[in-house]
Amino acid sequence: MTILLKEASQAMVRSGTRMTAQRQLILEYLFEKLSHPSAEEIHKAIYADYPKVVSITTIYNNLRTLKELGLVREFYLLNSGVARYDTRLGHHHHLVCGDCGRIEDWLGPAPTPIQQGAALGDNGFLPESFTMEIRGTCQSCAVSGGQARSRAV
Amino acid sequence: MTILLKEASQAMVRSGTRMTAQRQLILEYLFEKLSHPSAEEIHKAIYADYPKVVSITTIYNNLRTLKELGLVREFYLLNSGVARYDTRLGHHHHLVCGDCGRIEDWLGPAPTPIQQGAALGDNGFLPESFTMEIRGTCQSCAVSGGQARSRAV
Repeated sequence: MTILLKEASQAMVRSGTRMTAQRQLILEYLFEKLSHPSAEEIHKAIYADYPKVVSITTIYNNLRTLKELGLVREFYLLNSGVARYDTRLGHHHHLVCGDCGRIEDWLGPAPTPIQQGAALGDNGFLPESFTMEIRGTCQSCAVSGGQARSRAV
Repeated sequence: MTILLKEASQAMVRSGTRMTAQRQLILEYLFEKLSHPSAEEIHKAIYADYPKVVSITTIYNNLRTLKELGLVREFYLLNSGVARYDTRLGHHHHLVCGDCGRIEDWLGPAPTPIQQGAALGDNGFLPESFTMEIRGTCQSCAVSGGQARSRAV
């Protein structure tokens, strides 16, 4: 069991939630992949190895539980209503490849006005946090000339 | 008819799409409000004045048509799978008030690495565009001490 999975397991014990086989499979997948998958992608990947253990409903129910426990974050890309899941809970941004759809994390600096804590916009908006979605091309697609184009997201 | 609505009407004529009463009501609402409403919010607002003219299905169908014509943009906030609609089509960011849920637009500068066109992340991601979602407090809520808290988004 990885350190992250052990910590998640301990957090579940503290909250009185059982670490079931299904929850462990979902967390293992998320910790290993860090690919910001949707519930359907998680289901497809786990179902390939454990067809009798997980249904899509099981995945949805357990993702909700893990989210409520603060072990998993649900988020949406700017152009999609499909929920994606992340075990990286700290502040970060998303680099989205327009060719293959891969989502990488990036810990970039804030734009200057936000760094300076300035009020933003015409009406004096006071910023507290910010997240960027940056679209472009990942290195693999840049090298291959975007041959793997699927426009997945 | 406002200039924007006239331009939208001309764009529809060019594409061979009729400017129906329903489409005009939706566009008028979006151009007037600039509040990034959901389909349900648009329906509620228009239905109050025209209960026999628009159903929620009509709203959804017409929003899809207007989106396909490039007159309306559909987007999602980071924490919500509810589609929101915008007639401001140029590059801009969103200031989201955590108290009242109001969404303002902001034309802020890019963070320095993006301004410099640098490759981002550990794997040389090449950025092309970026959008920020900035959470904080709008001036009205800051002045009122967040008395209008609804955590709508």
